[in-house]
Amino acid sequence: MKLLEEKINADGRVLNENVLKVDSFLNHQIDPQLMNEIGKEFARLFQNDSITKIVTIESSGIAPAVMTGLHMNVPVVFARKRKSATLMEDLLTARVHSFTKNETHDLSISKQYIAENDRVLIIDDFLANGQASLALVKMAEQANAVVGGIGIVIEKSFQPGANLLKQEGYRVESLARISSLSNGEVKFLNEEAEELIK
Amino acid sequence: MKLLEEKINADGRVLNENVLKVDSFLNHQIDPQLMNEIGKEFARLFQNDSITKIVTIESSGIAPAVMTGLHMNVPVVFARKRKSATLMEDLLTARVHSFTKNETHDLSISKQYIAENDRVLIIDDFLANGQASLALVKMAEQANAVVGGIGIVIEKSFQPGANLLKQEGYRVESLARISSLSNGEVKFLNEEAEELIK
Repeated sequence: MKLLEEKINADGRVLNENVLKVDSFLNHQIDPQLMNEIGKEFARLFQNDSITKIVTIESSGIAPAVMTGLHMNVPVVFARKRKSATLMEDLLTARVHSFTKNETHDLSISKQYIAENDRVLIIDDFLANGQASLALVKMAEQANAVVGGIGIVIEKSFQPGANLLKQEGYRVESLARISSLSNGEVKFLNEEAEELIK
Repeated sequence: MKLLEEKINADGRVLNENVLKVDSFLNHQIDPQLMNEIGKEFARLFQNDSITKIVTIESSGIAPAVMTGLHMNVPVVFARKRKSATLMEDLLTARVHSFTKNETHDLSISKQYIAENDRVLIIDDFLANGQASLALVKMAEQANAVVGGIGIVIEKSFQPGANLLKQEGYRVESLARISSLSNGEVKFLNEEAEELIK
């Protein structure tokens, strides 16, 4: 997605060869117009997949997920990273470790918000090692729902997550695919492919 | 806002006389179409206030805030409830205690996302004791920004927050104003006024 790649080039900051910081438009400050375009694009990509529910994780997944839900006209549910004091129902749960942030969270989703016949689209901000997406897949499958696809805003393609999810048989659509963050520079997979063609 | 009141009547659950649970469309599962209408309504209410930035708190404030940002064409920033491992900048901070959830959080916003000349619209899902909104006000004012208004999705008008904020001189616009949750029933302030007129 050209608009997203341009935004990453303009405002993303490479902290080291594994970490791209996009706090100015996605993870802390949010660009609502960009999120709207992201939502439209996910809706286009998964338009033929009979999606009935979008599932994401708080907090950074919420903005792109809600815009996707708007354009697909389906509800969104976000997994919580800790149990809510007023959330007493039966829960779908999974433990997830973020290598990027070196944090472990117990995710939970109330069972009433993923039904047996749901076709779930998983949306997340980043895909690195795939642990967060796999946790959401696991929760959806606990509910006997079908995972119709996984939509990622920024994929770090040099990390194993995308291949892992594809090997497990899931369709992954990433709007920006980063092949390298070496030397303080963002390289996209498309650019590399174009350079090979030249 | 009629649509929101109808949704609360249809899908809200009164847990006790202080707690209304709206997990099915706002706090856990999210109704994107309703959020879009909420965003439009806040944009209409604050259209003449020269708002340059929307500020909210993760996680439940994000959906209504981003939709408001979309319709006002301004960026959104959400206060984090804990410090991020990759967030090393100077921070605006405030401590907030939720009486409803009996939790205390240290909120933080990176200083670079609220500027001295910003006119800030604070958006939050609930207003009860006003502590969360006051914490966001405090952070905006730490940055020498001007608070242009406070937009609340659901105000529990029988709790002191709304009056407290108005006494401090802030304009508060709440889309649903609940006068009572007694006897397992939601009563709206408008309804009560209408009954008095009859």
